[in-house]
Amino acid sequence: MSSKLKVSIVGCTGYSGMELLRILSQHSGVEFAVLTSESYSGLEVKKALPFFNSDKVLVPFNAKKIAKASDVVFLCLPHTKSMEAASVIIKAGKKVIDLSADFRLKDNKVYEEWYGVKHTKPLLLKQSVYGLPEINRKAVKGAEFVANPGCYPTGIILGAFPAVKENFVVASDILVNSISGVSGAGRKSSTALMFSELNGSLKAYKLVNHQHTPEIEMGIIMGSGNSKVKVSFNPHLAPVNRGIVSTISFSLKKKITTANALDLYKKTFQDEPFVRILPEGQLPETRFVTGSNYCDIGIKVDPRMKRLIVVSVIDNLVKGAAGQAVQNMNLMCGFEETTALLNIGLQV
Amino acid sequence: MSSKLKVSIVGCTGYSGMELLRILSQHSGVEFAVLTSESYSGLEVKKALPFFNSDKVLVPFNAKKIAKASDVVFLCLPHTKSMEAASVIIKAGKKVIDLSADFRLKDNKVYEEWYGVKHTKPLLLKQSVYGLPEINRKAVKGAEFVANPGCYPTGIILGAFPAVKENFVVASDILVNSISGVSGAGRKSSTALMFSELNGSLKAYKLVNHQHTPEIEMGIIMGSGNSKVKVSFNPHLAPVNRGIVSTISFSLKKKITTANALDLYKKTFQDEPFVRILPEGQLPETRFVTGSNYCDIGIKVDPRMKRLIVVSVIDNLVKGAAGQAVQNMNLMCGFEETTALLNIGLQV
Amino acid sequence: MSSKLKVSIVGCTGYSGMELLRILSQHSGVEFAVLTSESYSGLEVKKALPFFNSDKVLVPFNAKKIAKASDVVFLCLPHTKSMEAASVIIKAGKKVIDLSADFRLKDNKVYEEWYGVKHTKPLLLKQSVYGLPEINRKAVKGAEFVANPGCYPTGIILGAFPAVKENFVVASDILVNSISGVSGAGRKSSTALMFSELNGSLKAYKLVNHQHTPEIEMGIIMGSGNSKVKVSFNPHLAPVNRGIVSTISFSLKKKITTANALDLYKKTFQDEPFVRILPEGQLPETRFVTGSNYCDIGIKVDPRMKRLIVVSVIDNLVKGAAGQAVQNMNLMCGFEETTALLNIGLQV
Amino acid sequence: MSSKLKVSIVGCTGYSGMELLRILSQHSGVEFAVLTSESYSGLEVKKALPFFNSDKVLVPFNAKKIAKASDVVFLCLPHTKSMEAASVIIKAGKKVIDLSADFRLKDNKVYEEWYGVKHTKPLLLKQSVYGLPEINRKAVKGAEFVANPGCYPTGIILGAFPAVKENFVVASDILVNSISGVSGAGRKSSTALMFSELNGSLKAYKLVNHQHTPEIEMGIIMGSGNSKVKVSFNPHLAPVNRGIVSTISFSLKKKITTANALDLYKKTFQDEPFVRILPEGQLPETRFVTGSNYCDIGIKVDPRMKRLIVVSVIDNLVKGAAGQAVQNMNLMCGFEETTALLNIGLQV
Repeated sequence: MSSKLKVSIVGCTGYSGMELLRILSQHSGVEFAVLTSESYSGLEVKKALPFFNSDKVLVPFNAKKIAKASDVVFLCLPHTKSMEAASVIIKAGKKVIDLSADFRLKDNKVYEEWYGVKHTKPLLLKQSVYGLPEINRKAVKGAEFVANPGCYPTGIILGAFPAVKENFVVASDILVNSISGVSGAGRKSSTALMFSELNGSLKAYKLVNHQHTPEIEMGIIMGSGNSKVKVSFNPHLAPVNRGIVSTISFSLKKKITTANALDLYKKTFQDEPFVRILPEGQLPETRFVTGSNYCDIGIKVDPRMKRLIVVSVIDNLVKGAAGQAVQNMNLMCGFEETTALLNIGLQV
Repeated sequence: MSSKLKVSIVGCTGYSGMELLRILSQHSGVEFAVLTSESYSGLEVKKALPFFNSDKVLVPFNAKKIAKASDVVFLCLPHTKSMEAASVIIKAGKKVIDLSADFRLKDNKVYEEWYGVKHTKPLLLKQSVYGLPEINRKAVKGAEFVANPGCYPTGIILGAFPAVKENFVVASDILVNSISGVSGAGRKSSTALMFSELNGSLKAYKLVNHQHTPEIEMGIIMGSGNSKVKVSFNPHLAPVNRGIVSTISFSLKKKITTANALDLYKKTFQDEPFVRILPEGQLPETRFVTGSNYCDIGIKVDPRMKRLIVVSVIDNLVKGAAGQAVQNMNLMCGFEETTALLNIGLQV
Repeated sequence: MSSKLKVSIVGCTGYSGMELLRILSQHSGVEFAVLTSESYSGLEVKKALPFFNSDKVLVPFNAKKIAKASDVVFLCLPHTKSMEAASVIIKAGKKVIDLSADFRLKDNKVYEEWYGVKHTKPLLLKQSVYGLPEINRKAVKGAEFVANPGCYPTGIILGAFPAVKENFVVASDILVNSISGVSGAGRKSSTALMFSELNGSLKAYKLVNHQHTPEIEMGIIMGSGNSKVKVSFNPHLAPVNRGIVSTISFSLKKKITTANALDLYKKTFQDEPFVRILPEGQLPETRFVTGSNYCDIGIKVDPRMKRLIVVSVIDNLVKGAAGQAVQNMNLMCGFEETTALLNIGLQV
Repeated sequence: MSSKLKVSIVGCTGYSGMELLRILSQHSGVEFAVLTSESYSGLEVKKALPFFNSDKVLVPFNAKKIAKASDVVFLCLPHTKSMEAASVIIKAGKKVIDLSADFRLKDNKVYEEWYGVKHTKPLLLKQSVYGLPEINRKAVKGAEFVANPGCYPTGIILGAFPAVKENFVVASDILVNSISGVSGAGRKSSTALMFSELNGSLKAYKLVNHQHTPEIEMGIIMGSGNSKVKVSFNPHLAPVNRGIVSTISFSLKKKITTANALDLYKKTFQDEPFVRILPEGQLPETRFVTGSNYCDIGIKVDPRMKRLIVVSVIDNLVKGAAGQAVQNMNLMCGFEETTALLNIGLQV
């Protein structure tokens, strides 16, 4: 037991935290050190979260105590709340994987513009490593501090960067329409998130100024090396718990067949354990990845409109949050990258 | 009673037919003549459709008999099946409202290319009137034979044509992403339409070659007078029964504010009883129109990407099918256009 | 216009209030006087509730002002909040239809035991009339003050009282299992009512001590005349917006066939416009009544277990709340009982 | 590799078969021998089931070939289809786990009465072992041929037998109301199982004569030793993919508190890895067990009605089908009973 890695989860009664509990409980190399919750502190985990058989008592967050007790700390906090927390734990020499948006963007001005709040730890931005292994694995491997990507950016960057990198599409006018399940909005009570307000209904929201837009552009630039990338991002909400489907439309710069485009994508991802390119004629569905860490991608060329359309799906709570965080932890801590992450999706 | 219009529904146990029953049962100016169903013929309506209290017996379709017994016939048949049926009833001098796709496109070659089947009544195409009152009201008023628009085209044309008509967007590269409820696929058993295959999942489908594409282009051209219109159409499926949200993205040809764009849309639709333009800052949700004949539209300009984004929602079974068919019947037969159609949406 | 009845809705941005707006907007005999909302006061209705095209401004509740401006006032308030409100409006001589639970039970001690709060207007309980027209129509007709039944009680009482009245079942051990949609819990934000906490999941709740239990027993006693009635009530929650299915199981006191039991039910309800008894072999589904004021009932006898099983379905927001309230208003104010209530269910 | 157990799945593109693929892919002690499918034979698994990365080709069922190639065969066939198949494979000396209903009931007359078809292998009924480990573990351990329990019976028997065994409830009039997700009906196209026919709706079905009734009674008798058990079973359908909640109501024979009843249940299941008794005041929800092999149970005593109410939940595809089948395989083949089954539920 003592040889196991001591991991702590800050905010483990939110959806990302709960999902970390679920995934890490299957990981033979770790043990839970501290589990925090503000809303349920003082309760045993199994009382607050009946699906999880643990007598461990939830405690309120205390950065110094948690740093002392842990090897790795997962921060599942609302944005702005991670800034101070990460700072303390990093200083104490412990590894941090931050699931919030606070340390993803490298420029605090961009953060402040899109998030509408002051960044209080701009210097720490230089230390954080963007944790999308498929485009940044080497950096993640040696990292002490990883900024875990957002849910929309994960699926969109993976679907978009290869076409940009291979230079057969216009980079400056990429159109992305995504549909997300509701858990992406987090676990917080509000009329807008009530069951009866969402069930049976479809909508677009936060058009034009969704805060994930600059992260999406940053990630595609990082993956492709093309700094001209600009993205018009239209997010939608649909009545499912989990899953994001992103449909990415590019103007073609040269003629290409669907088969050729698929080959380029297959080559790009040939060694990736969690990206699956579907055969020609098939498009992904979010149920293929429910509960799993996979990102499935389908492709179709439209010769009439001279467009390439790429569809990617992920489970926003797994590859889009907790699963990717564990993948990052595996890389940071010397575990096999796929440990605890190879289960396949529920499908039904 | 004898002074009421005699209406018949061909295929009244499919979703469009059921919805016609629901709407027409509130219409004081009509009475049911013949109700046909192949799957349930011989049964009383209330036995086949327990929500509808009628002892009327469902009969198999017979074009001549139905023409004789009716003033107006609604055809709710799968595509290709309306060709012969419409032909017989039109010849008998009775009004036809065809909810299938068979008589919407004016060019049988285009029909054959996108639907992949032969059109057996190309001459009749000249007689049919495209039944989207907001762009073709005059023609519908005198019509004997109306081709009722498709569900996707209805919401997309209404959302798109004003911007094209006002000439502040690029017409030749319009991008449309739609999300539809499942009833749009009709009432036919197949594994792909089973509850457990769709619930909890999201997907794109029929990218690039969805058969509604040429109808969408035709309608925007008809509404705007601009023949350069070309559309890239990405349909998606989400686990709701009813409703389509369409997000339409245009490249701006000139600078415009959201407020100005909204004013142009409001002006365009100022006399329309079923189109509602939402105030700046609000976007429509399909629940606002569930069970109603409204089309709700929201607009946002993206100055960074130089794009106009229009979102429209309809209930695919009402404004996208049966409600619009009744609106057309009202116009064709001299009723007040809004008769039986003014109820508001269920919302929850 | 001046000849129309002036109706006001207190709490019209909750689910019952919204549903009253929807139904009353189809009622030709009424006009809206005052619409109140605490959360949205100061806003135009169409801003707060985009599905409803009205420029009327929502105001905070003021009992005296509303009494002055109205002929009939619908109270859609949480329980305990109606006590004072009803008192003031009744004293001002205006009709009140109270959709809360505050004036349904005749004995304030029973109210206090099951609701766990003090009843501050026990004398007013004598004036209120229990508004289930199928068992209490005469009293409703002359009433100034109607306590509108609860959603569970409505469907269960209608399904249960005929068997008890006809005396072929044991009255003292009736077992009821109900499954409700989520809108029954009202429109209030809480983690437990979030979409992702309910979608995809099923549960029993408030077993043994659900506050509707004494109302259910009172109603069956009122309808049957048998004071021995006792009910074990097991409510469940399922991920639908609207609808309650109640499965009622009785021990048979004598042999009876399904056909005979159906005949007795048909006779009981033969003149009722909103109760439909399904033919032998058919069981109701909540979609048959979605958006409508019907209560559908199916019956099956189990000779092996010597049990009668009755299944009833209603839309909890219509027959279980706003529709029944309008039915009561129609009776109280001399309108045809079915006015604005004859639309059929959405089914899909 | 050669030391791994060779397992085959007959009917692996149905829901139970797909779930076996999902679970067994995490089991380190087995490898797939033959995977059969009639609808998709000739296709690679990953083409038929895109969530499962396998190039293995699906083949049509051939009993002799499969017996030769396998150590254990899982039969996921519709009822009546397992009779001949099991017979051939058992004779060939290979282990069979039959997920159909064909070999659960010990008396072929009872099978024929409730299933309405002839049993062609009545002698083989004596060889089959009822595979509910919690009441029959010893027999399963030595078994060559296991009849895997039905989904409803699994949750109901586990929830009911301890109360009967401890003799504080009336055994001859047990009332069970269950609500099931849709996947329980299997993967077969039919109008009744279409998304739009079920979504948003609730119903009871197969009241009085559901074919699982005699299996439920048999299992409670087997677990309790009380042969007087009789059950009135009311199944319902709700729009979720997975999960069954069963609410079991007993007449109390003696006074008991909720705490005492809970203690008796806890004692009964203290060594069971997959049954969790919730603390007083908590009731289970199906999401607690989604995707997992747990059965969660909550209890409440009603002193007013002198009744005990037990609520149990399972995932019908895991503990109610494929998970339990793997649990049985583990016992039959000498693996640790919990191998590949310890993951916790998705919750959201």
